[in-house]
Amino acid sequence: MSRWQPNARERLEEAALQLYAERGFDDTTVDDIARRAGLTERTFFRYFADKREVLFSGQGEFVDTITTALDAALAQGSGVNPLDAVAAGFAALGPFFDQRADRARQRQRVIDATPALRERELGKLATTSDALAQALRAHGVEPVTARLTAEAGLAVFKVAFRTWVARTDGAGFGDTLRDAFAELKALSRSSTAVS
Amino acid sequence: MSRWQPNARERLEEAALQLYAERGFDDTTVDDIARRAGLTERTFFRYFADKREVLFSGQGEFVDTITTALDAALAQGSGVNPLDAVAAGFAALGPFFDQRADRARQRQRVIDATPALRERELGKLATTSDALAQALRAHGVEPVTARLTAEAGLAVFKVAFRTWVARTDGAGFGDTLRDAFAELKALSRSSTAVS
Repeated sequence: MSRWQPNARERLEEAALQLYAERGFDDTTVDDIARRAGLTERTFFRYFADKREVLFSGQGEFVDTITTALDAALAQGSGVNPLDAVAAGFAALGPFFDQRADRARQRQRVIDATPALRERELGKLATTSDALAQALRAHGVEPVTARLTAEAGLAVFKVAFRTWVARTDGAGFGDTLRDAFAELKALSRSSTAVS
Repeated sequence: MSRWQPNARERLEEAALQLYAERGFDDTTVDDIARRAGLTERTFFRYFADKREVLFSGQGEFVDTITTALDAALAQGSGVNPLDAVAAGFAALGPFFDQRADRARQRQRVIDATPALRERELGKLATTSDALAQALRAHGVEPVTARLTAEAGLAVFKVAFRTWVARTDGAGFGDTLRDAFAELKALSRSSTAVS
């Protein structure tokens, strides 16, 4: 086997998802994944710290994609609503998800089936919220408002993502996300509570 | 030592919080906690599955308190806004938190200092969100709206709780929560995006 393996990362991710779906996450070893991908364990560890990280390796790009679009939206001026800017941030994930719809569904099923992976995912999403709040503060949004906007935006994203994953009508992630943000606004506007 | 120990649960919780604050969570053992409380390890395990659960043992009452108040709000009729009902649910935690403000702060510092505890806390909050969504659906709220309302309400709760924990002006949890819900509504109402 030559040292350089074309698309090693993708092959390992693909093999891991297949095996987690077939045997479950707990009953799959790094050796199983490497074999299925036609690679060695050593190659696996060149890309991933452990078998869990195969599922979360895209976190850096995920946060970058959102915060880049968020920054662009906020750069349009001080009159931009922070929640709209966060919505624009998450909307930038649309093309990425739409191109990988099957893989996104497969990955979510694995995570949902394993409590430790669910907690890991929640931890990654909390990191995302922290990054969004920081980006909002950098544009002059008050700290509590920044955190509230980031958490509320993440709440809408989580629901939109789960809704999109469960859809079978071929709808894009962007449309599903827009509907979810519209619904949050409608709920807030129809509130009758004295505030 | 007699078999029956008055306030054993409270003494163990108090001892655990002290030790986690002094030595860190990772460097505290169940034996340390039991000794500090003047009890045995066996007594500890009569109340808690492990040293982590000491921090999360109130989860059942936590969820019950919120859903009972949520049910009461929704029982007022079909015109009740689901987000207002969720706000009423979280508001019911006010007296509980206000009576235990110091302990709540101490507990949060321990959790924030230990990534594994943070993930565990996020998992417990996700379970809370599931319970709220289920309660909303039981009152006829559409599934996606129910999940969105539960997640958005939880987002507001998380920010309000952190804000309250950090406050030094003696403000109650209820007031801090009401301000946070009002801010979410203001953000949603001032949104200029076409939806």
